[in-house]
Parts: sequence; structure tokens; C-alpha cells
Amino acid sequence: MSIETLSWVGGVSDGFLRLIDQTLLPLRLCMIDCRSTESVWEAIKQLRVRGAPAIGIAAAYGMVIGVQNVGLNLFEKRFYNVAQYLASSRPTAVNLFWAIDRMKRRFESVKPMLSSGGSDVIVQILDELFSEARKIHEEDRAICRAIGNYGQSIIKNGDTFITHCNAGGLATADYGTALAVFFTAVEGGKKISVYADETRPLLQGARLTAWELMERGINVTLICDSMAAMVMRQGKVNGVIVGADRIAANGDTANKIGTYGLAISAYVHGIPFYVAAPSSTFDLALADGAGIPIEERGADEICCSFGVRTAPEGVAVYNPAFDVTPAKFINSIITERGIITPVNKENIEKLITNTNR
Amino acid sequence: MSIETLSWVGGVSDGFLRLIDQTLLPLRLCMIDCRSTESVWEAIKQLRVRGAPAIGIAAAYGMVIGVQNVGLNLFEKRFYNVAQYLASSRPTAVNLFWAIDRMKRRFESVKPMLSSGGSDVIVQILDELFSEARKIHEEDRAICRAIGNYGQSIIKNGDTFITHCNAGGLATADYGTALAVFFTAVEGGKKISVYADETRPLLQGARLTAWELMERGINVTLICDSMAAMVMRQGKVNGVIVGADRIAANGDTANKIGTYGLAISAYVHGIPFYVAAPSSTFDLALADGAGIPIEERGADEICCSFGVRTAPEGVAVYNPAFDVTPAKFINSIITERGIITPVNKENIEKLITNTNR
Repeated sequence: MSIETLSWVGGVSDGFLRLIDQTLLPLRLCMIDCRSTESVWEAIKQLRVRGAPAIGIAAAYGMVIGVQNVGLNLFEKRFYNVAQYLASSRPTAVNLFWAIDRMKRRFESVKPMLSSGGSDVIVQILDELFSEARKIHEEDRAICRAIGNYGQSIIKNGDTFITHCNAGGLATADYGTALAVFFTAVEGGKKISVYADETRPLLQGARLTAWELMERGINVTLICDSMAAMVMRQGKVNGVIVGADRIAANGDTANKIGTYGLAISAYVHGIPFYVAAPSSTFDLALADGAGIPIEERGADEICCSFGVRTAPEGVAVYNPAFDVTPAKFINSIITERGIITPVNKENIEKLITNTNR
Repeated sequence: MSIETLSWVGGVSDGFLRLIDQTLLPLRLCMIDCRSTESVWEAIKQLRVRGAPAIGIAAAYGMVIGVQNVGLNLFEKRFYNVAQYLASSRPTAVNLFWAIDRMKRRFESVKPMLSSGGSDVIVQILDELFSEARKIHEEDRAICRAIGNYGQSIIKNGDTFITHCNAGGLATADYGTALAVFFTAVEGGKKISVYADETRPLLQGARLTAWELMERGINVTLICDSMAAMVMRQGKVNGVIVGADRIAANGDTANKIGTYGLAISAYVHGIPFYVAAPSSTFDLALADGAGIPIEERGADEICCSFGVRTAPEGVAVYNPAFDVTPAKFINSIITERGIITPVNKENIEKLITNTNR
């Protein structure tokens, strides 16, 4: 991305988080500047910033912003309040909680300094917190590249893949997760084609993935989610790659609604189905996908698509933002530490240690 | 329906076809009056009237309109031109061709009258053609009721079904096909619930099915097409009923895009999948679904949903309007002549004779 999905602007104590407002893409490329925890919370809640890794990075910076002008006495209380508040923005993607936990651990490692008093203590603690947020941000760049590289083993010259939602640069600090595999393939001289599911209700596939792939000159064809099964049956597809919002210890994977149906279709057609995600997406505390909280969003996302009412007033709506794909439908999970295949508890434990949480 | 999907207004020689313009529902209930063959063609092409049975009825009346003010010398030529022209409106639903064929057969039975000359010959032939169109129209009412009645064997009190697109009153002259099963169940005192797939790209499920079910007080919940698999996995669904646009001799069924993916999901979850359609939907000349022509529609249906651009300019789009569900995924086909189960060539032949074509 020539323009970064997220960036920090200014100094530690007076800087702010600048984001692409993804709700306006692809028609308008507008930035929003978050100078308060509330504006970071709102940006996450309203999907101005979305994608599990990007949400984690935004929350980490949001925790810095939340304690920028706080005195010594209130600092600790405020810090934990901010952590709790940001954690309430979206329930499913575990990277949010993972990033907040990392920020908490960093704070706890320097908290004893608070009792020593003095105004430069605040400066030092802010520096520590900012350094952790920056580290989460920088690490994600490297993670994207590593996922892209590991993913090359599943992608051949001339292949055509389907992807769902947006697991690209806009969902991360750099190259994306699923899309990193495509970008790295093209950089390596492979010619590939991609079908992008439009991804109802909010059309992240049409608005974001199609845009990212076109920007990089990758051959992309937009389809409605309901067309993927037919495209598979027509023999047009060699594989499916999607991102993830939370992966349980057994490999059950929560991702954008529609992923599960896509995985079933791939399974029935004998087409390999891959998940690409950083290790921070694993939640080893959950034995399986049944424990993953699924966010339900408002009816208007389905009934009033982009300002136009398209369903009767008062109709009941069910709008889960995510679904869970059982591990048995997933051929491999591509992480920055390597590829997990077959997907099971043992192989996940081997690669992803408990240090994540 | 208190307002009829299609109706003939006026006399045979000066009357016209009045349609609900379904592209404006549910926000506006507007009628359009088709006084020329071109306006009937346009209404079919633009989906102002849609649903396989309703398209057939509209085309039959369109053939009457096309020869209303034609002299003796030009009558036959004009009649066949109109038939050919209307047949070019949409390629997939076979009911269109079936209705045109019926009109042709009726015309051929009275064609010898043309050589006798005289202005009342035209009046008589017009009466014959109108009578055939009216018959197609009236028969469809009875067919809907019969499908609804036969369908009761698959629906129990308290059941929840998923349906896709709109196979209701708006798709037929009366009660619909798939929805006829629901309407008849409720009339018979059964309490049922329905999940309506919104049905991208044109949202017939959100705009039409949700509206029809609400109008009749049936408990309906709107979902995106991509949510159906999750709803099935959650154990919320007892069965799926959809309509059909063309059914091959072996039972392979073309229906609105997304039907195939829905059938796969039902199959994987062990949920019965039913097709409800009149016998005119069978095309016994086709051995299997591979021969069914699939209409591809324009990119704007996906990229410019209801006037709002939601995908990058110039993105490639694949927009098949239908898909084919192999017979092996279909538990039963409910027709006005009875239920075909299991779905295979022999059982179809037994119920649907070649008199259809």
C-alpha cells in the first residue's frame, strides 16, 4: 500500500493514530485521525479499521492515546479503564484482546516506577507503552511477509483461487494474510487469478479486496458469495484462501460470515481450503470453536445497503458477523511460523505455544 | 395477493397486460401496463415480472398483444416474429418457451381459417389465442394450489424452512410454488417459520419473499445468502424449499444463483432439500443439467447495487443468474401432479409425460 492502513503521526505524548476510513473505499480514500480512545473505539466498532491484525494494532495505539495527558495519580486506573473500554469494541477477533494483553504486560513490567513519583516517570511509561504498540505494529509487517513466503508452497503458476472478505493490506500493517500469499506469488513471477467473493453484508470483498488486487495488477473477478459453489463446480478454482479472526486449540476457525459455506463447497468439490493468519489469532484457551463469541450486528446492514432500503420495514433479521469453520474442512493453516497441516490440536500446539496469551 | 401479479385488462382486441413492477418492491407497489410486445419483452428482461411460471403467462399474453391490430395478410408472419422475439427475452426458465409453444400449437390448430379471409377471422383467431393465454394463466392458479397441497407431506407443525429467491405469488398467478407449501401449511393450521435468503444480486428474497411472508403473517427472518450454512449448523432448520427455472430429464435443476450452494450445505448437514415447480418446468429434451443455458447478466447488478457504486470502476465481474443443482442433492420435487422421490429419470418420466413440450 502506498498509503498505510494505520500510521502513528507525531510524538509519543502528543501524537495520534491515522487510519484509512475503510467504510468509504473504494469510492473515496479518506484518512481519519484518532486523537481519543473514543475515536479509536468508534473506528473499530464501525469497521473504519477492520481485519483482526489491524484491529489489534489500532487498539494498542489506542491505549497509548488513552493515557497521553493523565496525571500520576490517575494513570493506573485510567490505563485499565482504557483497556477494558477498547476490549468492548468487537468480540470475535482475538487479536484485539491479544494486543491489549501485551500492552497490559508491558505496563505491568514498568508499573513499579509509578510509586517513585516525578513527571518524567509518566514520560518514561508512555515511551514504554508506545514502544510496545510500535513493536506490535512492526512485527505485523514481518508476519505478513513470512505468511506470504510460507504460502508459496500451496500456490502454483497459473492457479486460480477464491478468497472471501478482505485479508489484505487493509486488514494488517502490510501485505495482509490471505492476500500476502497472492502478492508474494506475483512478486515471485507466478501468474495467478483470483475470484473475490463480494462478502455480504458490508461488501469488503467488492470494496476492499477487489480494489487491493486491482491496485497491484492481479487478475481479479468479482462474484456474489452465492456464486462460489458454481465457480468451483465449473472447475475454475484450484484453492481457497481466507483469513481468520480467532482459531481455537483444535483448529476450528472463526472468520467473516460466509467462510463456513465456502469451506463446505470446497470440501464437496475436493478443492483445498487454506486459512492464513498470524499466531496471535490462535486462542489456545478455547478447546474448540463452540467457545468463540460471535458478534451479531444490526439489521440495517442487511436491510439498508448503503443508504437504500431493500427489505420491508420491520422484517426480522439475523446478522452474525462471523461463522466458525470446523477444522476438518481446513487443509492447512498458514502462519508466520510455518504451515500447520493436517490441522489438529497436536500440530497447532507444536507450532503455537502458550506464550501467545 | 390482494393485487394480482399479472392481470388482463379490457377486451381481447384492445386489452393489455397489467403487471406489478417487481423491481420497485417492497418500497413501492406500482403497476405497469404493457400495451406492446416490446413492453412485455422489456418487463421480462428487466425482471419487472419474474419467476418461471409468471414469465410464461406474461409471454402468452404478450403474443396476443403482438397481433392485436394486424391485418390478415401479415398475421401469420407477425405471429411467428412475436413468438421469436419474446423467446429472446430470457434464456433459462423453460416455462417461457413452453408457453410460447402452447400458443403456437393453438395458432396452428386454427391457422387454416386464415385462408378463408374476412375480418371476423382475425377476431376469431385472436379469441382463440386469448383463450389459450387465459387458460395458461388460470391453470397456473390451480397448479399453485395443487403444489401447496402435495407439499404438506413434507412440512410439520413447528418446522422451520429456508427458501431462496422468490417462488411465491409474485412468481406465479397465485400462491407460488415453494411459498405455496408454506401458505397452505399455515391455512391448514400449522405454525411454521421461514428463513429467507436475501438472494444477491437483485435481492428477490429480501424485497419480495420477506414481503409476501410478512403480508400473510408468517414468521420470517431475513439472512444474507452466506449465512444459510451457519443457520443450518446451528440446528435451526428442518428443510429447504426452492422453486425452479428448468429441470432436466434426470432431475438436475436450474434455479436462481445460490441454490446450488444452499443444496450442498443442506446435504452436508443432512437437511432435506426440496424443489417445488409445475410440470411445465421440466425439459425432458435435456438429458441432464449440462444442457441448460445459463443467463449471464450485467456487471452493474453486482457493482452498483441500487444506484450506489460498491466496487472499483472497471473490475471484472462474473454474474450468472442461475446455477444447476444436481439431482443427487434434491430429496424430492413437488409438482402439481404429485411428488417425485427419489429424484431420477424413471420417476420423472412416470409423472411428467412428453405432452409438456
